[in-house]
Formats: sequence, structure tokens, C-alpha cells
Amino acid sequence: MHIAIIGAAGMVGRKLTQRLAAEGTLGETAISEMTLVDVIKADAPTGFEGKVTSVASDFSLAGEAEKLVATRPDTIFHLAAIVSAEAEDDFDKGYRINLDGTRALFDAIRVAHMEDGYQPRVVFTSSIAVFGKPLPYPIPDDFHTTPLTSYGTQKAIGELLLSDYSRRGFFDGIGIRLPTICIRPGKPNKAASGFFSSILREPLVGQEAVLPVDESVRHWHASPRAAVGFLLHGATLDLAKVGPRRNLSMPGLSATVGEQIEALRRVAGDKAVALIKHVPDEKIIAMVDGWAPGFEADRATELGFSAETSFDEIIQAHIEDELGGSL
Amino acid sequence: MHIAIIGAAGMVGRKLTQRLAAEGTLGETAISEMTLVDVIKADAPTGFEGKVTSVASDFSLAGEAEKLVATRPDTIFHLAAIVSAEAEDDFDKGYRINLDGTRALFDAIRVAHMEDGYQPRVVFTSSIAVFGKPLPYPIPDDFHTTPLTSYGTQKAIGELLLSDYSRRGFFDGIGIRLPTICIRPGKPNKAASGFFSSILREPLVGQEAVLPVDESVRHWHASPRAAVGFLLHGATLDLAKVGPRRNLSMPGLSATVGEQIEALRRVAGDKAVALIKHVPDEKIIAMVDGWAPGFEADRATELGFSAETSFDEIIQAHIEDELGGSL
Repeated sequence: MHIAIIGAAGMVGRKLTQRLAAEGTLGETAISEMTLVDVIKADAPTGFEGKVTSVASDFSLAGEAEKLVATRPDTIFHLAAIVSAEAEDDFDKGYRINLDGTRALFDAIRVAHMEDGYQPRVVFTSSIAVFGKPLPYPIPDDFHTTPLTSYGTQKAIGELLLSDYSRRGFFDGIGIRLPTICIRPGKPNKAASGFFSSILREPLVGQEAVLPVDESVRHWHASPRAAVGFLLHGATLDLAKVGPRRNLSMPGLSATVGEQIEALRRVAGDKAVALIKHVPDEKIIAMVDGWAPGFEADRATELGFSAETSFDEIIQAHIEDELGGSL
Repeated sequence: MHIAIIGAAGMVGRKLTQRLAAEGTLGETAISEMTLVDVIKADAPTGFEGKVTSVASDFSLAGEAEKLVATRPDTIFHLAAIVSAEAEDDFDKGYRINLDGTRALFDAIRVAHMEDGYQPRVVFTSSIAVFGKPLPYPIPDDFHTTPLTSYGTQKAIGELLLSDYSRRGFFDGIGIRLPTICIRPGKPNKAASGFFSSILREPLVGQEAVLPVDESVRHWHASPRAAVGFLLHGATLDLAKVGPRRNLSMPGLSATVGEQIEALRRVAGDKAVALIKHVPDEKIIAMVDGWAPGFEADRATELGFSAETSFDEIIQAHIEDELGGSL
């Protein structure tokens, strides 16, 4: 089996690549080859015995998606995207990468399908950013997508294309609406959502973190490990069970910031919690106000997708995956 | 005021043009100029004293949308589309006209906005085809758009672009999800939905019509006159009241085929009803099974959009607008 990962140099892309390399199989099928695509060359995973090709490519440029499709990957994970803040700041770049790049990939597959019946599995990462306030809690599976960012708009369009191209039989697609990923490993970044991770990640290693919002803020989370699990399940699931509605809100954990902090206290004590400094930021408070508080995710749950059910579990996954297993 | 109508040669486009010409105003503003755009040159309306320019153009071709935008229309009605059956048969043409053409128009406006702050009202005709079965009855305003045709997909993408470009301030857009238009004037056509009109239109003038589905089939209707009314109201409505969710399911009349026939009986007698021949068509029965039975349309109704409330009214509008006022 030949697997392609587009956006392989990103955080989730790297974890997915490494997990596939470690397991050596997708479902019950041995992986013989991986093609890693990103705007920079992604590192090859460790411990994988098959062929690895790492390519720097931008699918919004003419002919680039066709090069990947010419190698006829059996499964394509499409994770590449300009993130929310950048797509909002740079209108052209967001539409070019997130919409035109996605459409170029889908169309290259369509052309190949017309040539020889090629019909790969396509796993597309979408986002809860396809929803915009006012939002009910929990958000039902049949709630309309009315994004309030260009990023969310581009993801919602990608979802529509994915469903139509799948209905036409050009490929067999599934769209995975990821929760906010928490605890995101690495250094603090400037994403407005960054505090959800940093108020746990930094105190776990004895460093201070800033909380810019009230503890009552409720949001929707899943660990990086759960996110990789969603993608793998999406790649192996029997899509006949999914039907024509190919885009699924993933399960996750709805929690308030206060609940996050109490989980931190249970795992790492009062000393860790004391490292969180509450410095209200009106701009972030206003943004977060429109974010999804939580989902029913009934369809995805019935289809076998699963995520953590407590922040203690999310913190434990971070300790195991990023901190060598103990504090 | 300068008004542009894209898709001016179509049935609704012609009626809209003629209505604007007859009234001479849009809301309370006098119309000085109309630009009519379609793939063929639309006829100039009668009784209009302002300037009329009729242009044959295809906005999916580079530079074409820019020519219209260079004339800086104050209000743009975008009605042009490849219809459902043709967009399903010809994948490339449907995406080219319905998606690329719409995006080319929106982007030409965006570029003009960046140049000089140009910010027209854009009234975009969408369709209940953005919804796909299984559908509740009535369909609430916050129900998700999961189209089951490429046409519906293209319209749903147009809606998303309209909202994002409006949110960004490039133009002030509103999307009008039209019910099935009934009674569509003219000759019988091969559209699967054609029978909804022909079972009334033909018997009203003493001709036979074929009913391919059961009388229990329920669908969602509005007259051509109501459709023009939606567009005019969308063009003059205070969009601050609408907020960022710019696409509205219009009010309409939910009726079964049996209810249509009983209205025909009341207006034109048993002799007219006897002209309807029931010839089941399994292909049409299967297609119609997935169509929208009816909508709540609460938001549009609260915003002042209105449609007929009985099929007697719809038939009466047809008699007045198409048959000279009497049978």
C-alpha cells in the first residue's frame, strides 16, 4: 500500500507519519511506500522499512498535484492548510492554498479516475471553524455551516467538494472536522487558541503560562494522539456506512478552562496551577466568544471514532507522548 | 441607480428586468441604467426610459466579469447558472459556470473594492438544491447543506463565498434560496421538476399533461411573481438586520400534488383536472423522493420576504401574468 500525506511537515502530519511508520500497516494492509508532501520537505520517519519520498510542493501551482497523483497513492491524507489567522490576514494566500490547492488535488484525482478508474481513499482534515456563532451547545450533527473566518469558509467549501467528488465516484473521501488540538506540543505560538495548550504544557514543565480569558470559557478539545486516531479510522472505515454525508464532526471533550486547570491540579499539583497567570486580553476574549463549545458528534461516535473523555486523559497522553512518560 | 442583471435572458431574469423597467425604481431610488448580461443578448425591456445595455458574456472567461464591474453597477442581481440536470451531465461546464463564473464576479468586485471602495449590493440566487435527503419536514433555517447534485454543491459554495466576501466588506451580499418556481410559463421542458408546472399550465389552456409521480408527493413552491419579489426585497432590505448569515431559505408553499390538483379543480373545474394523465415514471419518482418537502423559513419571513399561501393564489398569479387575466 502506498500512502501519501499532504501537509506532512505540520504537527499532526508528523505524528501521523511517525505512527504509520511505527505500525507498518494501515488497518490490516502493509505499507510499502509513503510519499510526504509539504511546502518544505518533511523529515522521513524513523523505523520504517518501506520506500519514503519527501517532496516540497505547492498544489495551488499548475501541474503539482498531478505529479503526486501520477504515482497513484492508495490513500491520500490531505492535511495541508494555511491556518486561520494567516488566512484571515492574507486573503489571496488563504484562498489559493486552502481552496485552489484542495480543488487542484481533487481535480487531478478526477482526471486520473477518468483515465484508468483510479479511486483512492481521501482523508480530508476539516475544522470546527466551519461553524460560526451563535452556536447551540452541544452543536448537533445537522447544524448548518456558517463560518465567520475565511479559513472556515475554505474548509466548508473543501467539504462540499469532497462530498460531490465522492458521490460522483472520483475518489472515496471522508472529511474529519478536528476539535482544537490540546495539548499542542512545542513552544508557545501566537495563535489565539494557543493558551488552551500553554496553560497546561508550560506548568507541566515548571514554566509560567498566561491565561487571557475567564475560567468559565468552554471549548472543544482532543489530543494530538486522538487526532491521529481519527485520521487512521477515517482511512480504514467502511464508507458505505457513512453514506453521502461525508463530513463528520469528530468526538472530543467539552471542557471549561476551569476544568482544564482542575485536571492540571490533580496531575501536577497546586504548584503547577500557581504558574498560570491570569492576564485578560480583550481581543482574545472577543474571538473565543464565538468558538464552538462542544458537539454531539453522534454520527462519528456511532461510526467508531473516539476521543478522550477527561482532561486528565489528555494531560496523560501529553506526558506519555511528549515528556517521556513521567513528570 | 445602475442595476446589472446577470442571467437576464432566463425566465426569472426577464421577469425581473421587466418589473424593474415597469416600476422605474428600486425601492425609492430611480433607475437610470440597466445592464443585462447573459450568454446570449437579452432583449431590452419595454417601457423603460433609462439607458439599457445588453451584453453577451461568459463570466468564467478571463476578464469578462471585470468588464461589467468596470461600469460600477450599484446593484448586481446574479441569476446566471447552468441548471441542475445539465450541471449533472456536464461536470466541467457546471463547475466552470456555476462556481468559477460566480467566483470571477465576486473577485472582480473585490479588486474594484480594493481600488476605490466600490461596494455594490449583490443579490445571489441560490436554490433549495443545497439540501439533500434525508430531510425533515419542515426544514429549519439552521439545517445543514448537504447537496446531492453538483448543481446544489456549486450553489452551496456560492453561498459560502457570498457570506465571506460580505463579511470582509467587499460587497454587501444576500443569497436567496428559491423554492421550485411554479407555474413556470412557456412550453413543457425535460426538467424532472417540470410536471409540477405542466399539470397546471397545460390544463388551464385545455391541453393534456402527464403526471409522473403519486399525488401524495409534497414539494415547495413559489410563483415567478413571488421569486421576483424575493429578489427585489433582497436588493432593498437593510442587511444590518440580516447579520453574517447571508443566505436565506425563502418562504413558499408546501403542497402535495393532490393539493395542486384540487386547486386546479376549484379554479378551472373537473374538465381541466381530467386532462392530467397519470403515467408513473420510476426515474422521476426516485429523483423527487429526495426533494425538499418544505421549509420553516422563519428568518426570511421575519425579514419581510413573502410568498403565496395557497395554490389558488399561485394559479391566479399565472392567469394574471401569463393568460391575460382570465381563462
